[in-house]
Amino acid sequence: MEKDCVFCRIVAGVKEEDKIWEDEEFIVIKDVNPKVDGHLLVIPKEHFRSFLNLSSEIGEKLFGVVRKVVGKLEMKDFNLIVNNGKFAGQLVGHFHLHILPRRKGDGFRLNV
Amino acid sequence: MEKDCVFCRIVAGVKEEDKIWEDEEFIVIKDVNPKVDGHLLVIPKEHFRSFLNLSSEIGEKLFGVVRKVVGKLEMKDFNLIVNNGKFAGQLVGHFHLHILPRRKGDGFRLNV
Repeated sequence: MEKDCVFCRIVAGVKEEDKIWEDEEFIVIKDVNPKVDGHLLVIPKEHFRSFLNLSSEIGEKLFGVVRKVVGKLEMKDFNLIVNNGKFAGQLVGHFHLHILPRRKGDGFRLNV
Repeated sequence: MEKDCVFCRIVAGVKEEDKIWEDEEFIVIKDVNPKVDGHLLVIPKEHFRSFLNLSSEIGEKLFGVVRKVVGKLEMKDFNLIVNNGKFAGQLVGHFHLHILPRRKGDGFRLNV
């Protein structure tokens, strides 16, 4: 756990009812500032500053976690987004991946 | 190879000089419609319609490929994006991951 890391604090203190998904290495929670309904964050419990710092083990496991979550929630249309670094919009220095469930006419434009 | 799949045709016919990166399972090429300078696509050679259809093997290897590519190109700031399904903006029905290198003042807004 990293001192002063907001996501480390969340990992340590998140309530059971706020966990969308959890295993030994990851938790999945709702983004407190959702860009679309159901906007989720996949967060490794261990502190890695960014995508570039992830261990290979956690990086490889990330795929399976995302797939289990979108499967469990029966998402068909969604965006997966990782922002790495300040100029890419990474706001918290603890790696996280965004899952944005998408719906027809949801008003969100990704433009990629 | 899937008949009528534009990415299967690209995988089969891409010129050596257009390959940013290649291994047995993946190629990385420039997006023909770049949203930012250096916009890349990571494409598995095998045809998987979407993220939901990827084999576990390819899904797990994806992390390492992305890391090698951003490492080789010395990217510090970048977005990784997967669009899954029509309402998420997936335009080609062959899984691909976008790498968008980001720079200060590049004018691109992701909003996530």
